Amino acid sequence: MGATPIPDAAPTATLEPTDGPLTFEELQLAGRNRGMPLEALRYDVTPTGLHYLLVHFDIPYVSPETWRLAIGGLVSNAASFTLSDIRARPRRTIPITLECAGNGRARLSPRPLSQPWLVEAIGTAEWTGTELAPLLEEAGLAPEAVEIVFTGADRGVQGGEEHDYARSLTLEEALRPDVLLAYEMNGEPLPPQHGFPLRLVVPGWYGMTSVKWLTSIEAVDEPFGGYQQTPAYHYQRDADDPGEPVTRMRVRALMIPPGIPDFFTRHRLVDAGLATLRGRAWSGYAPIVGVEVGVDGVWAPAAMDPPIGDFAWRGWSFDWDARLGEHELTCRATDAAGNVQPVEPPWNYQGLGNNLVQRVDVTVR
Amino acid sequence: MGATPIPDAAPTATLEPTDGPLTFEELQLAGRNRGMPLEALRYDVTPTGLHYLLVHFDIPYVSPETWRLAIGGLVSNAASFTLSDIRARPRRTIPITLECAGNGRARLSPRPLSQPWLVEAIGTAEWTGTELAPLLEEAGLAPEAVEIVFTGADRGVQGGEEHDYARSLTLEEALRPDVLLAYEMNGEPLPPQHGFPLRLVVPGWYGMTSVKWLTSIEAVDEPFGGYQQTPAYHYQRDADDPGEPVTRMRVRALMIPPGIPDFFTRHRLVDAGLATLRGRAWSGYAPIVGVEVGVDGVWAPAAMDPPIGDFAWRGWSFDWDARLGEHELTCRATDAAGNVQPVEPPWNYQGLGNNLVQRVDVTVR
Repeated sequence: MGATPIPDAAPTATLEPTDGPLTFEELQLAGRNRGMPLEALRYDVTPTGLHYLLVHFDIPYVSPETWRLAIGGLVSNAASFTLSDIRARPRRTIPITLECAGNGRARLSPRPLSQPWLVEAIGTAEWTGTELAPLLEEAGLAPEAVEIVFTGADRGVQGGEEHDYARSLTLEEALRPDVLLAYEMNGEPLPPQHGFPLRLVVPGWYGMTSVKWLTSIEAVDEPFGGYQQTPAYHYQRDADDPGEPVTRMRVRALMIPPGIPDFFTRHRLVDAGLATLRGRAWSGYAPIVGVEVGVDGVWAPAAMDPPIGDFAWRGWSFDWDARLGEHELTCRATDAAGNVQPVEPPWNYQGLGNNLVQRVDVTVR
Repeated sequence: MGATPIPDAAPTATLEPTDGPLTFEELQLAGRNRGMPLEALRYDVTPTGLHYLLVHFDIPYVSPETWRLAIGGLVSNAASFTLSDIRARPRRTIPITLECAGNGRARLSPRPLSQPWLVEAIGTAEWTGTELAPLLEEAGLAPEAVEIVFTGADRGVQGGEEHDYARSLTLEEALRPDVLLAYEMNGEPLPPQHGFPLRLVVPGWYGMTSVKWLTSIEAVDEPFGGYQQTPAYHYQRDADDPGEPVTRMRVRALMIPPGIPDFFTRHRLVDAGLATLRGRAWSGYAPIVGVEVGVDGVWAPAAMDPPIGDFAWRGWSFDWDARLGEHELTCRATDAAGNVQPVEPPWNYQGLGNNLVQRVDVTVR
C-alpha cells in the first residue's frame, strides 16, 4: 500500500493555524466538498449540481417513509410530522444565496486547518418549503423558551466530541417570516447532499445555520452549547478567545474570470478590445448598493442588474477596454449598511468570514 | 491584497512530478472539480449532483436554440443537426459507470501535477441519447477514414497549446452499438457541467473519451494528433516516452467507509459487532467476477449483488465481525479477463489509471 507523499497534518487535537503546505486532510476535504466554478456566476439561479456543498460528516441516507420531524422541548403541543404533513402546509419559494462561512479560508496566513476554500463556496437556489414561524406558533412556545435548536441526521466527531450536527437560533431569528423548512431545491425534491428530505434555510446567514437532514426542532430555555454552536463558528483571535458568533454573510462581490483559462494555473487569456466583465454581489446585512471594479488598482463603478430577490445575489457588469499586456482585475461590493469588502483579509482563528476582495490576473493579447 | 501562504507550483512549462507539498494550483483544481463522496456508493445510480466532475477549461454556456452538431470530414453526406433533430432519433438509456483516468493520482509518489484525485473520481448515471453508429452510417464514411474526431465547446490552454477540447476514436470503437450521443442524465436534460446540450458517452472507457458540449464529429484519414489525444492521456515512463494510450477503465472496487467520521481526518469510528461493509466494483475490460475484502491483511470473498448493466458498477457486501481496536480494511476486484487490482500503485508520468487497492483505517469501539 503506497504511502502518500503528501505530508500529514498535525493530530486533530492540535489544529493550530499554519503557514505550512496544504495537508493531506485538507485535500481529502477538498475532494469531498465542492465549490461553485466561478463561470456559474452567469446563472441567476445556480444549476443544482453546481451549488457549493459543505458536509461536516457523511451524507446520511434518510428514508422518506420512516422519516419524522419532531417538534418539542418547551412547547405546549409537541408533535411529529411526516413529509406529507410538511408538504401539505402553505408553500413558499424564495431565491436565496448561501455561502459557507469558511469561504476564503485558504487565503489566510497563517491558514486555519479545515475545508480549504478559496472563493468558490457560494450558490443561489430557489428553495421551496413551508415557513417555520407558523409551525412554532402552533407548537406553542413556552414563555421561558429563548432559543430553538435544529438537529440534523448527520453524525460524527468534531473537536473531539461525537454529535449529530445541530445549531440554534434565537426566537427573534427563528420567527422571521422568511425562514423556511425546505423540501425542494430548484423545483425538485432536495438532493441527498443538500438535506433530503427536509432542511432549514435561513436567508442572509452563512450556510452552517441552514441545518440539513432535519430531524428535530426543540425549544430550550438557555443558549445552546453544542459544538457547532460554540466554540465552532466564532470569530476568535486565538484558541482562548470566546469570540463573537458568526451570523450573517459579509458583503462580497465575485466576478466570472474573463477569457479562457490555462488548465493547470487557471491563468486567464483575454482578447484585446471591449470585454464585458460580469459577476454577482450579496450581503446578509443589507441590500447591495454598488459594485466597483478595479483595473490595475483603479476603481470604477459597475452597472447593476435589477435585484432578483431580497435574499439573492445581484448581478453586475462592467465594460472593460482590455489593452495588451498583464492586468489585475478586482471587484468589491458595498451594501446599504455601509459595509465594504476589505483589501486585506480579516484574519481570525477559525478562518471565517474572509470576504477579501477577489483578484483575477489576466493576460490581454 | 494578501498573498497566499500556500507555495506556488513551478511554472506550467516544467510540470515534473513532485514529492513536494500540494501546490496552490492543485488546490484551485480541487475546488473546481469534484469527486463523489464515497457514501454515495450506496446508490445504484449516483444522484446527479454527486457524480464526479472534471472540467478541463471552463464550463461553456451553450444556447440550445443556436447550437448545432456538425458531422463532416471524410463523409459523403456532411450534415448539421439541431437538438430537436437529435432528440427525434431512436432513444436509448444505458446505466454507465464513468471514472476519471486521473483517479488516484494524488496517491502516487512522486505525484504528477494535475487534478489531485484520491479515489473519488467516479459515478454512475443513466445516460439517455441516440446511438452514434447509425448517424455515422447515414453520413457515409469514406473508405480512407480511420478515426472519428469529437470536438467540444470548451476552450483553453493546456501543454502550451490553445485548443477546443477534442478526442478521437478508431472506427471500430466509434461504431460500437453502445456508444451514445447523450442529451439526458438520470432522466433530465444534461446539466451544464455534464455537457449540455449533447455529449459523447463511451461505455467502458475512462471519462476523458466522453467529450462534453459536443459541437462537431469529423471523419479523418490519419490518427488525430490534438493535445488531449497525444501526448495527454498516455501511460508514459517519463516526458520523453511516447507511451501507450489510456483507453478502458482498469478494474477497481471501492467501499463505503463504515461507521462515522471525524470531520477533519475522516478517520472512522465503528461500533463493535456485525458491520456489513458495502461497495461497488467495475472494469472497462470485462465483467466483474469477484471482490475480496481484506481485514488487517487477510482477504476473504465478498457477496456479489446482481449486475445492473453491462457497463455499470456491481454492488458487493461483506459481513464483518468488527472487534475492538484498530483495523485496516481494504477491497480489491477481479474481472473476467483476470485483471486484479494492485497493492502497489502503478506509477506513470501523468498519474493515470492508478487503481491501487483502497485502504480505510477504522477504530472499533
